[in-house]
Amino acid sequence: MSKRPLILVTNDDGITAPGIRMLISIMRQIGDVIVVAPDSPQSGMGHAITVNATLHLENVNIDGKQPEYSCSGTPADCVKLAVREILDRKPDICVSGINHGSNSSINVIYSGTMSAAIEAGIEGIPAVGFSLLDYNWSANFKHCRSFVETITRQVLENGLSDGVVLNVNLPNIKEKEIKGIKVCRQARANWEEEFDKRTNPMGRDYYWLAGTFVNMDNGEDTDEWALANGYVSVVPVQFDLTAYREIQKLNTWKLN
Amino acid sequence: MSKRPLILVTNDDGITAPGIRMLISIMRQIGDVIVVAPDSPQSGMGHAITVNATLHLENVNIDGKQPEYSCSGTPADCVKLAVREILDRKPDICVSGINHGSNSSINVIYSGTMSAAIEAGIEGIPAVGFSLLDYNWSANFKHCRSFVETITRQVLENGLSDGVVLNVNLPNIKEKEIKGIKVCRQARANWEEEFDKRTNPMGRDYYWLAGTFVNMDNGEDTDEWALANGYVSVVPVQFDLTAYREIQKLNTWKLN
Repeated sequence: MSKRPLILVTNDDGITAPGIRMLISIMRQIGDVIVVAPDSPQSGMGHAITVNATLHLENVNIDGKQPEYSCSGTPADCVKLAVREILDRKPDICVSGINHGSNSSINVIYSGTMSAAIEAGIEGIPAVGFSLLDYNWSANFKHCRSFVETITRQVLENGLSDGVVLNVNLPNIKEKEIKGIKVCRQARANWEEEFDKRTNPMGRDYYWLAGTFVNMDNGEDTDEWALANGYVSVVPVQFDLTAYREIQKLNTWKLN
Repeated sequence: MSKRPLILVTNDDGITAPGIRMLISIMRQIGDVIVVAPDSPQSGMGHAITVNATLHLENVNIDGKQPEYSCSGTPADCVKLAVREILDRKPDICVSGINHGSNSSINVIYSGTMSAAIEAGIEGIPAVGFSLLDYNWSANFKHCRSFVETITRQVLENGLSDGVVLNVNLPNIKEKEIKGIKVCRQARANWEEEFDKRTNPMGRDYYWLAGTFVNMDNGEDTDEWALANGYVSVVPVQFDLTAYREIQKLNTWKLN
């Protein structure tokens, strides 16, 4: 690519989160950056869009180094607004994150970070969601830099197949302990939820969602295995959800 | 199945929506029904879960015919709460809907109706999301009855493969015009959004999301084709989002 690529940056932790500020600084080394991100944290929003409420968009100045817009909506809304209202041309890549916390295995389903990447993919924009396995706001993202840069440059160089975006997770270990980048499949895992039931001062019950992550997959080709063994995981993610192998089985049913 | 199946009913339009009341009445013919549904409409919520706020659950009496709970959370929250806090045993099936409006093709990504079915699928419960191609609150669901019943009974009889749930959409035409039930793949389609930009009385700009649905898929094996040609569409949906065919390609990249 001869001229500098146009890079759309978003996330789901909000435009001031340390993870997106690190991602912006990495992307400035690669191309021209524009930021459109939520004005507040949107974790657990899944692929939500704002259909029954209005959206606000503010041109904000955070570090003065690139154009930035904060949006009252979800990560998917940010991508839609960027493409339709802000950008003059389609960006060469959309990067989302770096998320404070894992989006590996089944978490991809609940992930606002990945919903932004998927929304970009639906728009035909190569897209990557990046997440660090550390939920803390004060997480250290320094060791992410070289891996995020390598993956982004490879996407710009090679492109992605139509209908595919990347889900990248980074282990929370020292840079020198990271063994490399590993292409993986999504591990079969789930959350065994427990609800913490409490009573409020007015005597009404309420619940907090809690739970334990359970990896039910022994495969060594999964993102969970890679992360547990010191690798950065890269899972190609598709948004054609059709379970093709089930179609034949369903055609044997007595439906008509 | 000798004894009556236990059926969990939920939706994303809220517990009082005509669509879920019809679904409940159909399910009462098939088994023992329990309802756990949002206390207000949740359309466009995608696969959101409530991680940073509390959840309320109320035992409500709407028609006195089955136990019902309204929940302050999302459709996915409803399924989690039902399984962990309300039910003594795993339900034999979870049905979600009947949604007021289409969840065909790419809409599956944004769908609260389908997120409830997927959440149930993650929990190992056979699950179906039903949607009618009519967004109106006063939509007529009568012609859905026999198709919804047939599909539900077939799921109970045959089961679904691990990791697969069904996305069922019903055309908004007269019952006698419906040609039958067709197993399909998800059509390749998207929304060409336009944002309706307005200025509020305080002079601040805001946006409404609008847009046009564009089917880019000429296949006659898609849900869009089936619905346009008078069929009820059934798409098997998976939540392993791995794009397996892309893995080989990514392994040729210079990642390490």
